[in-house]
Amino acid sequence: MKMDPRCTYCLLSRVHYEAELATDDKDKIYRAITECMDVMRNTYKPGVAAGVVSTAVHRKAYEIIENNDPYYNLKELSNSTAQKVYPAAKDLIYQNEPSLKEAFRRAILAAVIGNYFDFGVMGFDVGEDVFDETFMNVFYKGLDVDDTSEMFKMLDNVVYVADNCGEIILDTFVFDLIKKTGGNITLVVRGEPILTDVTMADVRQLNLEDKVDRVLTTGCNAIGVAFDEAPQELLEAFDKASLIISKGMANYETLSERKMGPIAYLLQTKCESVAQDMGLEKGYSVAKLMR
Amino acid sequence: MKMDPRCTYCLLSRVHYEAELATDDKDKIYRAITECMDVMRNTYKPGVAAGVVSTAVHRKAYEIIENNDPYYNLKELSNSTAQKVYPAAKDLIYQNEPSLKEAFRRAILAAVIGNYFDFGVMGFDVGEDVFDETFMNVFYKGLDVDDTSEMFKMLDNVVYVADNCGEIILDTFVFDLIKKTGGNITLVVRGEPILTDVTMADVRQLNLEDKVDRVLTTGCNAIGVAFDEAPQELLEAFDKASLIISKGMANYETLSERKMGPIAYLLQTKCESVAQDMGLEKGYSVAKLMR
Repeated sequence: MKMDPRCTYCLLSRVHYEAELATDDKDKIYRAITECMDVMRNTYKPGVAAGVVSTAVHRKAYEIIENNDPYYNLKELSNSTAQKVYPAAKDLIYQNEPSLKEAFRRAILAAVIGNYFDFGVMGFDVGEDVFDETFMNVFYKGLDVDDTSEMFKMLDNVVYVADNCGEIILDTFVFDLIKKTGGNITLVVRGEPILTDVTMADVRQLNLEDKVDRVLTTGCNAIGVAFDEAPQELLEAFDKASLIISKGMANYETLSERKMGPIAYLLQTKCESVAQDMGLEKGYSVAKLMR
Repeated sequence: MKMDPRCTYCLLSRVHYEAELATDDKDKIYRAITECMDVMRNTYKPGVAAGVVSTAVHRKAYEIIENNDPYYNLKELSNSTAQKVYPAAKDLIYQNEPSLKEAFRRAILAAVIGNYFDFGVMGFDVGEDVFDETFMNVFYKGLDVDDTSEMFKMLDNVVYVADNCGEIILDTFVFDLIKKTGGNITLVVRGEPILTDVTMADVRQLNLEDKVDRVLTTGCNAIGVAFDEAPQELLEAFDKASLIISKGMANYETLSERKMGPIAYLLQTKCESVAQDMGLEKGYSVAKLMR
């Protein structure tokens, strides 16, 4: 996905958000905002990929606030919130003895609802206090784009690109269903902390290694996946996958820039720019397969 | 009021908004966003007044989109919307034969509600379709800060600094009440089009000259009042006023930078930065007197 003019102020608002998470020092916050504007000015050219700008901007912000994981506490909060909703979600997915295919569809829906976990997206905040309620409401509303039937036929060798903490706990329902169909799962997480995204530390803390066949990382702290910084084995895993499942907007922004597939994007369209790029509306729950 | 880090992305979002009002040309929109970032970078220093940055930014935006009045159609829309609510508002103000003082309080409330007219403020949009309903709801809720009793004693020689079109039609209730107390009114409007603000063209179109004793302008298209570009007679009017009444956030941002008064700020606190600067909360209906 290409950088949209709207991404400029959304990015700056997120820089401000994470700067305030890390520090009360007004001078540092001022420097974070203004030096990130410089970075944006140097990287935002017509036609540039959004991920190139956002990665450079967040790296500069982390450098100035001198904190490589300002979202640390929010990640913990997301995980504990998701753990609370987990039993009710499991009941919903397996109620009335669904077929494997129907259970898979419901697990995907739960994973898409998990993408509501996000902090600092401009105008988008689902606090931990209302996540339970949000989960139930969206579960009964269902997916706005539902390509799960097609996806269900392609689970032989899945590469699953994770997004946020909290969300990852609901992703495990999908892992369980893929395993039940006999499929193989390669989970991909970030190489280093960035935003509220899952890293190897979270994988270990949540025992996710037991749920999948192997875990790879993006090799760095880029927003989404930066192919020029990605390990060779990740590129090979993408090449060999029967299906890539990509969670969230940042993975969409970066994976959509490279010809590969088939790839299923699971996300909430939290902003107009991504929704428009996908040919959808803002506020959709999406499981969209692209070949 | 000083520039807050939050003003950076709010300003950029407004540049984008007005660029899209004026043009579909993606290159122009890109240039408006990026060159306004340059202007912001050059003007935003710690401690700078917010109005200095916002005036420079909007002037650059108007230059690049080659349009000196991108909000023209929205101004017309605001005026026609306000005209529709005018009769019901008048009934509310004068119902049950109020005292002059009580009618003044209600007229001020109506004028503060009029400050909901605004387009392009990030996260804040009261469309013309819901303004009627908004008016009634806020009228019955009343003012969150109500210094109208004090103001009522100071109406001898009022300088009234107008803000948006639409809003100005509800301001006339206040003009009527000031005249009924025997007071004198100098209305101040912008010297040239900027955002949806009232100019001399609007004053003539709406026959506002009949409602007040004289009309002055800010002498330019600055956001709020730029004192270094203001006509001498405006500065003298401020000096001689028994009470300055200032409408809206932009006038607050600029007038609060200069020692003068007494001054009453009538506004909706539409953003955290202004609310915080006034020691209030976002979402308040405010008539606050400062000496």
